[in-house]
Amino acid sequence: MTKQERATRTRHALIRSAAIVFEQHGYAQARLVLISSGAGVSTGALHFHFDNKAAVAEAVVAEASRGLRDMSGAIRRRTDTALQALVDSSHALAERLREDPVCRAGFRLSCDGERAADPDLRVEWHHRVRELLDEAAADGTLAEGVSRQDAAAATVAVTAGLEVLGRHEPEWLSPYTLTGFWTLLLPRLAAAGTLALIAPSGTEAAARGPAFAADTAAETAGAAAVT
Amino acid sequence: MTKQERATRTRHALIRSAAIVFEQHGYAQARLVLISSGAGVSTGALHFHFDNKAAVAEAVVAEASRGLRDMSGAIRRRTDTALQALVDSSHALAERLREDPVCRAGFRLSCDGERAADPDLRVEWHHRVRELLDEAAADGTLAEGVSRQDAAAATVAVTAGLEVLGRHEPEWLSPYTLTGFWTLLLPRLAAAGTLALIAPSGTEAAARGPAFAADTAAETAGAAAVT
Repeated sequence: MTKQERATRTRHALIRSAAIVFEQHGYAQARLVLISSGAGVSTGALHFHFDNKAAVAEAVVAEASRGLRDMSGAIRRRTDTALQALVDSSHALAERLREDPVCRAGFRLSCDGERAADPDLRVEWHHRVRELLDEAAADGTLAEGVSRQDAAAATVAVTAGLEVLGRHEPEWLSPYTLTGFWTLLLPRLAAAGTLALIAPSGTEAAARGPAFAADTAAETAGAAAVT
Repeated sequence: MTKQERATRTRHALIRSAAIVFEQHGYAQARLVLISSGAGVSTGALHFHFDNKAAVAEAVVAEASRGLRDMSGAIRRRTDTALQALVDSSHALAERLREDPVCRAGFRLSCDGERAADPDLRVEWHHRVRELLDEAAADGTLAEGVSRQDAAAATVAVTAGLEVLGRHEPEWLSPYTLTGFWTLLLPRLAAAGTLALIAPSGTEAAARGPAFAADTAAETAGAAAVT
């Protein structure tokens, strides 16, 4: 392993450890020594990568943001319709919120107001949902007369709700809850004749497995990583 | 005003002041002297009503809970169908989250984990939504084959999402956002022939005006208050 690869790996371990510490203690109470020891390095090594706690928090949000963007882009490339890509992206988002502490902490840090780190992940997700609905309108899979603004707002509100409800009851983030939502909503969104083509439970394009952390570390290190 | 009425009024003013202080500073940072001075009384008067900060927080949550229960009961009595009562109750909940600091603080205190005060208002709302959907199934306004569990989960997730999104962007709690959601969802929920009878924007039964605080104070004082 080169020195550069080691540094990338350490930086990634620090971001992951910080996400876990922020989640357990909250941003205000999180101590840098817990973050560095969680990553198996000294506080000196932490300060080599980050000036202060705010910089660590920003890195957590930036990594969560990049992970979600990569995920949604990869899903779009592997799905036939933008409407299925929307359904699949929502399932993949819920899976990350269940499995990936960096994604969870990223949402809390960027949205909970205790510390409003840029970018706001809910705003980014809203943009992505709106893009996919615009595409669905263009490719003819969105039913005529459906308000894209209303459909985007309902989708964003539901996923934001599942995120906060899932903090106390993980069942809210299960695939069944989201499948139930899409089973209700898709008959209103899908154009005539296309409903049967859209799976409310998502397709295998949504399933990347739990290896987000390994993926993003490899990508950061410049390895060929898109699976 | 009797001594009892004055005490009730002071207790209510303390709860309202506490809600505002908890919202501005968070539970951990909220100081009792700010709460008492916000209510225009001494800290001694505060301690006459509440043992400590936790007791004040519990009173905020209990008052928010009671307010929502009274609201939803009153709406049900004034609407023809359970499905309209569900729509109206969601609009009235959004209105309270916009206008009433006790309701907003109640949700944060009972759901945000910083301090998990009983009862959990989101769980109570979930029960109420489920009751209304069960009633709608019984009175024939719910479409056949609709999963009540899915419909309840979608409604609760959307309202929880609007609550947290509305903290940063009040527009999320506007009547238009919720009307858009019901415009999308009602054609899936309403039984054939009943859709035209349900107003997605709510009926006047949802509109109680902004005088929650005065209402609940009067009710607490035992005055005839149901408007």
